[in-house]
Amino acid sequence: MSKTLTNRKDDYAQWYNDLVLKSGLADYSAVKGCMVIKPHGYALWEHMRDELDKRFKETGHQNAYFPLFIPKSFLSKEAAHVEGFAKECAVVTHYRLKNDPNGGGVIVDPDAKLEEELIVRPTSETIIWNTYKDWIQSYRDLPLLINQWANVVRWEMRTRLFLRTTEFLWQEGHTAHATREEAINETTKMLEVYATFAEEFMALPVVRGVKTANERFAGAEDTYCIEALMQDGKALQAGTSHFLGQNFAKAFDVTFQDKDNKREFVWATSWGVSTRLVGALVMAHSDDEGLVLPPKLAPLQVVIVPIFSKDPAAIAKINALADELVSTLKKQGIRVKFDNDDNVRPGFKFAEYELKGVPVRITLGARDIENGIAEVARRDTKEKAGVALDGLAAHVAQLLVDIQANMFNTALKFRTDNTTRVDTWDEFVQVLDEKAGFISAHWDGTSETEEKIKELSKATIRCIPLNNAQEVGKCVLTGKPSKERVLFARAY
Amino acid sequence: MSKTLTNRKDDYAQWYNDLVLKSGLADYSAVKGCMVIKPHGYALWEHMRDELDKRFKETGHQNAYFPLFIPKSFLSKEAAHVEGFAKECAVVTHYRLKNDPNGGGVIVDPDAKLEEELIVRPTSETIIWNTYKDWIQSYRDLPLLINQWANVVRWEMRTRLFLRTTEFLWQEGHTAHATREEAINETTKMLEVYATFAEEFMALPVVRGVKTANERFAGAEDTYCIEALMQDGKALQAGTSHFLGQNFAKAFDVTFQDKDNKREFVWATSWGVSTRLVGALVMAHSDDEGLVLPPKLAPLQVVIVPIFSKDPAAIAKINALADELVSTLKKQGIRVKFDNDDNVRPGFKFAEYELKGVPVRITLGARDIENGIAEVARRDTKEKAGVALDGLAAHVAQLLVDIQANMFNTALKFRTDNTTRVDTWDEFVQVLDEKAGFISAHWDGTSETEEKIKELSKATIRCIPLNNAQEVGKCVLTGKPSKERVLFARAY
Repeated sequence: MSKTLTNRKDDYAQWYNDLVLKSGLADYSAVKGCMVIKPHGYALWEHMRDELDKRFKETGHQNAYFPLFIPKSFLSKEAAHVEGFAKECAVVTHYRLKNDPNGGGVIVDPDAKLEEELIVRPTSETIIWNTYKDWIQSYRDLPLLINQWANVVRWEMRTRLFLRTTEFLWQEGHTAHATREEAINETTKMLEVYATFAEEFMALPVVRGVKTANERFAGAEDTYCIEALMQDGKALQAGTSHFLGQNFAKAFDVTFQDKDNKREFVWATSWGVSTRLVGALVMAHSDDEGLVLPPKLAPLQVVIVPIFSKDPAAIAKINALADELVSTLKKQGIRVKFDNDDNVRPGFKFAEYELKGVPVRITLGARDIENGIAEVARRDTKEKAGVALDGLAAHVAQLLVDIQANMFNTALKFRTDNTTRVDTWDEFVQVLDEKAGFISAHWDGTSETEEKIKELSKATIRCIPLNNAQEVGKCVLTGKPSKERVLFARAY
Repeated sequence: MSKTLTNRKDDYAQWYNDLVLKSGLADYSAVKGCMVIKPHGYALWEHMRDELDKRFKETGHQNAYFPLFIPKSFLSKEAAHVEGFAKECAVVTHYRLKNDPNGGGVIVDPDAKLEEELIVRPTSETIIWNTYKDWIQSYRDLPLLINQWANVVRWEMRTRLFLRTTEFLWQEGHTAHATREEAINETTKMLEVYATFAEEFMALPVVRGVKTANERFAGAEDTYCIEALMQDGKALQAGTSHFLGQNFAKAFDVTFQDKDNKREFVWATSWGVSTRLVGALVMAHSDDEGLVLPPKLAPLQVVIVPIFSKDPAAIAKINALADELVSTLKKQGIRVKFDNDDNVRPGFKFAEYELKGVPVRITLGARDIENGIAEVARRDTKEKAGVALDGLAAHVAQLLVDIQANMFNTALKFRTDNTTRVDTWDEFVQVLDEKAGFISAHWDGTSETEEKIKELSKATIRCIPLNNAQEVGKCVLTGKPSKERVLFARAY
């Protein structure tokens, strides 16, 4: 397979697929819509998981694990929920195979039919709230702050690596509270955990907002979200946090005795991010040469490549210098590798590490060393510079910090440049087709108009930003009065 | 629910169930055979996972993730494999639900039947080797050293919390090699990783051995295992490492070009441990008061409980002392909590932390403090001692080391005391019924005899220990010649 990627400007979708496959993030599998997450892709997910997990624990959450299977009847208990998920469920109907008595190989044993079908979880509210019924009796059992790391399945018709797959990995928080106010606080607190994670770790600026009724999670009273902008000007929902009201408590009869000895229904939230974030990371930052990874998330942060000469003394000097540098950087907690494989030419290594997105490359050559310098290349800007050997480790450590900041700022500038205030329908359509990005426009607040706009333009309301400026205006489609702008975009 | 456990001597099985439920490790779920892993149980699994993951990476393995679903036809490709797993498979046959037009609620949509049924993975050799076919072309692609952390499903008829559940969490390593010898080395290397993990971290002595043909993994040429002894004298298989020969390479046509440009089939291993280890941990160490956790695995290693008096000055002194102690212990990487909840009486806290298995409890009371001491209680031996406040942190750090060692030594002594050399069939039956434990006895090496012994006694050959002493003898059942003893036991 050629390492060359399709250029972004020629075919952004093809560039993305090429990149995911060729950089070793993921592969297609034999099961329709399911992918194989390869080691490089899984390492990114592991780093995300560990960092998020730390932040969940710091905010008082504990991990647990609930069954993969959900009895069909559970899914039906919350009306909006089943409406949202029934059409894309993997259904287990049997529990045994057998040899075909007619010689047709291995077949499903018709005698092993389940009394009640099991759904492979598309999300776990129902099985979890059925369990919470036993765990919650009194206000002393609240709040209950649980998260689980798990795989889920949604039978998608059109799939794309990481962005939309039949099976995906995610975390889902499910919390239970005594009051509406506390549950809403939890919902927005976790949204902020996601937002700061995306911005600080993924170098991915996000808009914090709330979804319109049309775009809400099936079973939620309110869905909060973080929305990011990709390089092709399409938006991507990067995480959601739902205020579920008492919907699931009522569906599963989960009540608690409050301090006044009254029984009340419990208030709920749920919130999740998934391996989709890996897709967002790729689409937000990478270029035609390959992945560009923010240092905090990069499995390998620094690679040292030697230019070996034929002079044994020079080789020894390079090796000694590299070993010392590796040791110094590792002590600072930097993930570094000295790639001294002499079966591979330096140029090939350069291309490979660019493809993989390693943030900093240090090249050690005999002549440079004699002059007291090494060549340091940064992946984000592709700038190269000769850096004095004396103080090189400190330079590299600072460079990683700079790259992280620069990647965020670049993405933020891109988003700012590609967020357009629009006041007429003609302009709306023109901007969407010619420039794309976020469109900030007035909307009359009705689902009908929202659907009409989607039908006409394929743009959806990504969110109503939190702390949105209140501004009197007229709906971009209907001209009806509006009190604030909302963010539209075409989206993944 | 009462906190009191059934005593081990009265009903060991009931004691185990009581303990798992009451200490908050797990709960039953609404799905037959599936459990909910509660936060305390999941924290144990997380600690195991992180430690094992570190050891896998140190031995050159990378994580990846393969699909949950396996096409039915894949399972059938390796004859022994399908024979072993077909009878306990969850089968996905449909991908959509719909509203019953006859008003029967939500039903499986008959129009959404899969062309080929999907099996929820019971283990992933087939889907992984189907993928490896694309990844392996040349000897340069080998060895391929991959691990995955995942959930798997085996439709068990009789289940027990952690020990045997329909769904369980595990890791499965799947490696590919150029030579038989290298694959066998990998198999035994990973067995040793499991063994040292069990002994060093879980304080669980294990016998390293190889399974007889009868007990081999379905599709393996050899199955290596670690076997542990529980307090009721039953054995528990704690981990397995399989040499798969070229069976899966042949089933999925995975070949590589060797250095001489010849195409050869690839050699394989697979190895796994699961949440079953949590059950082993509980059964090996715990007592009638609750869990006894080895310090290295305990989510909480030290708890400080104050005995509050009514004197504000005394309370302030206790609080200050506790805060300082927490800070000092945390700096040493010790997981410690100061439980100053004054709504709960100390005696209740003592019982609760004993139930949860916290290795060390420090009680701070005003009078003790005046005398310059604190009471330190260790969970394993239930010994209490007054320890000088001066040097308390160092004492506690050392105590954790001592507890870890003592738990291992106690379990090892138990195993030694409960491993019996037996030379006649009468003695075999008598020891099994009256003493249980491991029985070291001669066996004539045939599957027929092994099955007959199982039928007569419910004991199986747990393993042929590695580096087994060669000793001429006669089979305990048939009297036929034997060249070594093997280990029998009744097992979980």
